[in-house]
Amino acid sequence: MLSKTQLKYIQSLGHKKLRDDEKAFIAEGPKIVKEIINEVPGSVISVFALEEWINENRSWAGNIKFTPVTEAELDRISQLSAPNNVLAVVKKFNEPVIETTNKITLALDTIQDPGNMGTIIRTADWFGIEQVVCSDDSADMYNPKVVQATMGSIARVKVLYTDLEQWISGQQVKIYAASLEGKDIREIKKPAEGIILIGNESKGIRPQLLQKADERITIMKKGKAESLNAAVASGIILSHFT
Amino acid sequence: MLSKTQLKYIQSLGHKKLRDDEKAFIAEGPKIVKEIINEVPGSVISVFALEEWINENRSWAGNIKFTPVTEAELDRISQLSAPNNVLAVVKKFNEPVIETTNKITLALDTIQDPGNMGTIIRTADWFGIEQVVCSDDSADMYNPKVVQATMGSIARVKVLYTDLEQWISGQQVKIYAASLEGKDIREIKKPAEGIILIGNESKGIRPQLLQKADERITIMKKGKAESLNAAVASGIILSHFT
Repeated sequence: MLSKTQLKYIQSLGHKKLRDDEKAFIAEGPKIVKEIINEVPGSVISVFALEEWINENRSWAGNIKFTPVTEAELDRISQLSAPNNVLAVVKKFNEPVIETTNKITLALDTIQDPGNMGTIIRTADWFGIEQVVCSDDSADMYNPKVVQATMGSIARVKVLYTDLEQWISGQQVKIYAASLEGKDIREIKKPAEGIILIGNESKGIRPQLLQKADERITIMKKGKAESLNAAVASGIILSHFT
Repeated sequence: MLSKTQLKYIQSLGHKKLRDDEKAFIAEGPKIVKEIINEVPGSVISVFALEEWINENRSWAGNIKFTPVTEAELDRISQLSAPNNVLAVVKKFNEPVIETTNKITLALDTIQDPGNMGTIIRTADWFGIEQVVCSDDSADMYNPKVVQATMGSIARVKVLYTDLEQWISGQQVKIYAASLEGKDIREIKKPAEGIILIGNESKGIRPQLLQKADERITIMKKGKAESLNAAVASGIILSHFT
């Protein structure tokens, strides 16, 4: 049974300002909730789920608080078009420490679509990229659509939001900027370390960041589309760089 | 000025059944509308746009019928969260003839997310893939979200919906199935022809299709994500195959 206060609180977490105030976010669906419980112990504050799901999962989930809800209640708190058994309220993760030496790091300039942001985090996780640094104006990693699109990778990849221009100026490793013109990625020897910079969906990388790049890299076009989706481009570059 | 009949007709094209009945769909935004007008002459039935846009574009658009609308009217007919100057009603394209010899063809089994479907068509266009064959239960290419995600590539790439099992049985070229286990795509010599089969977002390729594949191919995983987004996977495979 869901109280009115709980209902209002969970719904409020759909908004960035309230997520920031409460330092909490929501995650939905068995796969994502389980991954967060397992990978970031202590972060899940409470779980709202159908009684059947609770009965099947309570045993392994430690002493997390479970609240049984009806399908109608889950419907009201869910951000999904098809609510999926369970919704967790989760503490925002600690701000990660990023260390770029001997690693490939992804840097995102103003990625705005939540689906793209989540898919990029998921793709980074597939290729073993442990850290993603985002400009402050990028889509919020705790937006429910981002969390959903990460498919659980949000629990494993470190994501930092910062003043990207300032941050990148302080880095010692080579900076590769994904661009419509540049060196064919297939001609670049897999680097042991470096920052791969990906730009906004329509505007690309802002000039102030682009001029800090050591090398512009590109995915060779053979057809007529003007550009590639930002998440697809990230995946293609990572498949060549890792 | 928009009539009530026009308003109702345009809104109805948001539904697949009515698109099928009317053999028409809607496309929005200057870029996509221009590309369809240029690449598929005769397909655009009528254009509804802000007066300013009409004044700037009427000269090059031939004898297409333009109806000026106010921002409030555009808002009511648009499927976008931020309506973008122009909406066109377009005749569905002729069913394409697909010829697989000496070409790379993409085949999609039950891709359900409209954003993925559109992004895959856009990615195919980037890599010069001219044709995509979809199982009948895949997301409709004329769904407004698909049209939007193609960013205009819908006007260039041939897309066929068919009984994929039956269609693939009749093909003579090699069939590569994207799978979580298989030969590393980097070890495959770029083929001059072949069909690349991509599966559903959560279930992958159905067994009846998978058994028709000549080779299973995979994108090597270095991290912990369970899977890749279908559009990202398509992009990575095409970047290695073309």
